[in-house]
Amino acid sequence: MASIFTNIIQGELPSYKILEDELTISILTIEPIHLGHTLVIPKLEVNHWFDVPEKDYVQVSLNAQKVAKAIQKATGCPRVLTAAVGFEVQHYHLHLIPAWSMADLSFSKAQKRSDGEMKEIQQKILAAMGSL
Amino acid sequence: MASIFTNIIQGELPSYKILEDELTISILTIEPIHLGHTLVIPKLEVNHWFDVPEKDYVQVSLNAQKVAKAIQKATGCPRVLTAAVGFEVQHYHLHLIPAWSMADLSFSKAQKRSDGEMKEIQQKILAAMGSL
Repeated sequence: MASIFTNIIQGELPSYKILEDELTISILTIEPIHLGHTLVIPKLEVNHWFDVPEKDYVQVSLNAQKVAKAIQKATGCPRVLTAAVGFEVQHYHLHLIPAWSMADLSFSKAQKRSDGEMKEIQQKILAAMGSL
Repeated sequence: MASIFTNIIQGELPSYKILEDELTISILTIEPIHLGHTLVIPKLEVNHWFDVPEKDYVQVSLNAQKVAKAIQKATGCPRVLTAAVGFEVQHYHLHLIPAWSMADLSFSKAQKRSDGEMKEIQQKILAAMGSL
């Protein structure tokens, strides 16, 4: 069965899109630790991040730098953390988490936010990337 | 003042080295969450991971894949997690954490281990990389 991210990539499920290119997609996670929490995902469905082919993996890594700078600008956070975990959805996705302290690396804090809040932070990040 | 990682890179402090090349160094962290917890570090001292120049950053990313596969082989862990945090040492370092569950992404679990245990896991990872 295709992963939830493959469903999003194929347009079968909606998402708050930040960036898309031939090999990757970046979307807001629907359960952010803080607003602006984004996932960078290779279109190729691969379970472990260390098994993603070099071209796709490097593209995820480089887009993560670009998107993280925009998240920092849009949220004013002092740092943007990254994490690859994968126990829940076994399709590699790199978390970019706006953070004010170490304690923000805590998925137990993640919770759904309103559609209005999600659209607002999406627009701010897109503006910070110069994509608006 | 140079970071503790720059001190290690310059040979002024000892480390349990896993991999070194022109642009990066990979070492066991002295306070592992689990034995085998490794840091991949660009030699260039840059605070935020998203500001590391492309060549250095891509080399960190690609070496992380190589080292993580060896960590999985050496420890038998189902997944290897990654995290970039940086609130404590402001010289980018990518954590590679052998993990058995989501709960292993918890730096409060980190603790020093004996020199014997560190040398043993270092040798196992090096053997898994084919570097022994």
